[in-house]
Amino acid sequence: MDGSGDAQAKAPQDRLADWLAEDMAAVNRLIRERMASEHAPRIPEVTAHLVEAGGKRLRPMLTLAAARMLGYQGIDHQKLAATVEFIHTATLLHDDVVDESQRRRGRPTANLLWDNKSSVLVGDYLFSRSFQLMVETGNLRVLDILANASATIAEGEVLQLTAAQDLATDERVYLQVVRGKTAALFSAATEVGGVIAKASEAQVRALYDYGDALGIAFQIVDDVLDYGGTAAVIGKNTGDDFRERKVTLPVIRAVAKASVEERAFWVRVIEKGDQRDGDLDQALSILRHHGAIEAARDEALIWAARAKAALLNLPASDLRKMLSELADFVVDRVA
Amino acid sequence: MDGSGDAQAKAPQDRLADWLAEDMAAVNRLIRERMASEHAPRIPEVTAHLVEAGGKRLRPMLTLAAARMLGYQGIDHQKLAATVEFIHTATLLHDDVVDESQRRRGRPTANLLWDNKSSVLVGDYLFSRSFQLMVETGNLRVLDILANASATIAEGEVLQLTAAQDLATDERVYLQVVRGKTAALFSAATEVGGVIAKASEAQVRALYDYGDALGIAFQIVDDVLDYGGTAAVIGKNTGDDFRERKVTLPVIRAVAKASVEERAFWVRVIEKGDQRDGDLDQALSILRHHGAIEAARDEALIWAARAKAALLNLPASDLRKMLSELADFVVDRVA
Repeated sequence: MDGSGDAQAKAPQDRLADWLAEDMAAVNRLIRERMASEHAPRIPEVTAHLVEAGGKRLRPMLTLAAARMLGYQGIDHQKLAATVEFIHTATLLHDDVVDESQRRRGRPTANLLWDNKSSVLVGDYLFSRSFQLMVETGNLRVLDILANASATIAEGEVLQLTAAQDLATDERVYLQVVRGKTAALFSAATEVGGVIAKASEAQVRALYDYGDALGIAFQIVDDVLDYGGTAAVIGKNTGDDFRERKVTLPVIRAVAKASVEERAFWVRVIEKGDQRDGDLDQALSILRHHGAIEAARDEALIWAARAKAALLNLPASDLRKMLSELADFVVDRVA
Repeated sequence: MDGSGDAQAKAPQDRLADWLAEDMAAVNRLIRERMASEHAPRIPEVTAHLVEAGGKRLRPMLTLAAARMLGYQGIDHQKLAATVEFIHTATLLHDDVVDESQRRRGRPTANLLWDNKSSVLVGDYLFSRSFQLMVETGNLRVLDILANASATIAEGEVLQLTAAQDLATDERVYLQVVRGKTAALFSAATEVGGVIAKASEAQVRALYDYGDALGIAFQIVDDVLDYGGTAAVIGKNTGDDFRERKVTLPVIRAVAKASVEERAFWVRVIEKGDQRDGDLDQALSILRHHGAIEAARDEALIWAARAKAALLNLPASDLRKMLSELADFVVDRVA
C-alpha cells in the first residue's frame, strides 16, 4: 500500500494495476526484453525514453483484464499486452514526426532528442517486434484482428491529416479519425483478450464494443480538454489542436451553429491557417457561446455509457466492475 | 513481342516477367485493390506515384518464381508477392523521410510532393495492408518469416543510421546493414514462396540462401555504382552515399589501407562531415588507388556465385535457369 489512502479511493486504473500486478510485471519484463536490439543499441535508448516515461499502460491492462475476466490461464495474454503497448508506442513515435511535437508526457519528444529519422525507424522496429510477439501466439484470429486494427489506425491517421484544415469535416469523418487514432487499438486490445480466452462470440463482441466505446469516449474527452474542458480555465496544453488546425468535435458542433461572422473566423483560422494573437480566446468564447464544449462532453458521456452497457454481456466479476468504473473515470475529467 | 529483339536478348528479369505474366497481372490487380482506401483518398495518390513509377517488381517476381518452380498451384503466392511489394514500397516511403531524398526513380519523392507526414503515415498504411494480406494466407510459418524479416529490416535501418559517420564500421556491421536494407526482404520473398509450395526443408533453405545472397550482391553493386562503378566515369547519382556519409564497402576497403593523410581525409569528410568542393573526386582517386571499387565488385561477384550455387539444391527448370541468370545480371552492371 502506498500512502494515498485505501483501495476504494484509488482510481480504477490503479486498482486494475493492483489486481493485475503479476501479469503486468511479466508484461514489463517482456517489453524490456523485446525492446532490446543486439545490433542497434540506439533502439532501446529511444524507446526506453518513451516506454519508461510513466505511461499508464492502459492498453495492455485492457488485454490482461479481458483475458483474465474470462478465465484465461496461459501466458499469451501477456504477449498480446506487450504487443498492444509496442503498437501504441510505435504510433506515438510516428505521431511525433507527424505533429512536429516538442514534448510528450512532460519530456522532450524523441524526435527532438534524436531526430525524425530515429523516430520513424524505431517506430518501424517496434511495429515489427509487436508483429513477432503476436505471431508467437499462433492464433490466426488474433492476427487478423490486429492486422485490421493496424490498417484502421494507419487509415485514421492519414484521414486526420486530410480532414485537418477542412471545415467540411463532419461527425462521421471525425468518428473514423477517432477510431483510427484511439479506439481501434482499445477494441483490439480487449477483443484479443477474449479470443485467446476462448470466449463465446457474444462475449468477444461485447469486449470489442466495450473497447471501442471506451476509446471513443477517451478521445472525445482529450479533444474537449484541448479546449480547456468545461472548467473554462485554460490549461497548460490548451489550444494544441487549434494551432494544428484539427477539426475536432467541439469545433464541428460550433461550426454547425456558426453565424456568418463566426464562419468567417473559422475559415480564417482553420482553413487558411491565418492565426493571430487572441484567436484562441476568440475560439473559446465562440465554443462556449454555442455550448459546443458541453455538447461534446455529453457525447463522451454517451460513449462511456455504451461501454458500460457492453460489459453487461460479460460475467459479473471484480474485473468487470473495475472496467465499468474505468469508463466513468475516463469521462470524469470533463464531467 | 516488342521491338527489342528475340527472347534470348532480353534481360533475365524481363524473361521472368514474361514467364510469370499471368501471375504478375493478378499481383498488380491485387496491389491496386488493396492500395485503395475508402476513407482516406490521399493514400492511393501517394502510393500510385511510387507503385506505378516503373518499379521492376523484382521482389514479387522472386516469390512467384519460387512458388511456381516448386509446383505451387494456388493463389496465395500472389498475395505474398503483393505483400512483399507493399513492404518494399513502405520502406521506400520511410527511407525518403530518413534520407531526406529529393528524387526516387527519376521523379520527385513523395515527401517533397506532399510532405514527411504523408510519407510516414502512408508507409504505415502499406505495412498494415501487407500484414492483412499475409494473414489471409493463414500460414503461420509464412507469418513468422515475414515478421522476422520486418524486424531485420527495421534493425538494419537503425544500424545504418548509427554506422554512418563512423569509420569504425567494419564488414560485419556492413553486412548486417545490407541484410536489413535489401537482403532480408529478398530472402523472405523466396523463402515464403517455397513454404507455401510445401517444399522440403532443404529446398526452403536453398531458396532462403539464394534470396539472401542475391540481395547482398544487389546491394553491394548499388554501393559500388554510387562511386561510379568500375568504369571510372561519374554517373548522375554518383556520390549520394559520400554526401550522406555512409560507410559502404568501397570506403571500408579503402579505409583499411589508408595512409595517415588519407585517414585524416576520411575522418574529415565522413566523421566530421566537413565536405568541400573536390572532395568527391579526391575520394574517388583514393578508392581507385587502393583498388577498393574492384575489391567491392569482387565481393559482389562472390555473393552472386553463392546465389547460383544455392539454386543447385532445387529441381532444374526454366525458372531456375532464369533465376541463375538473374544473379549474373545483377552483378553485370559492375563486372
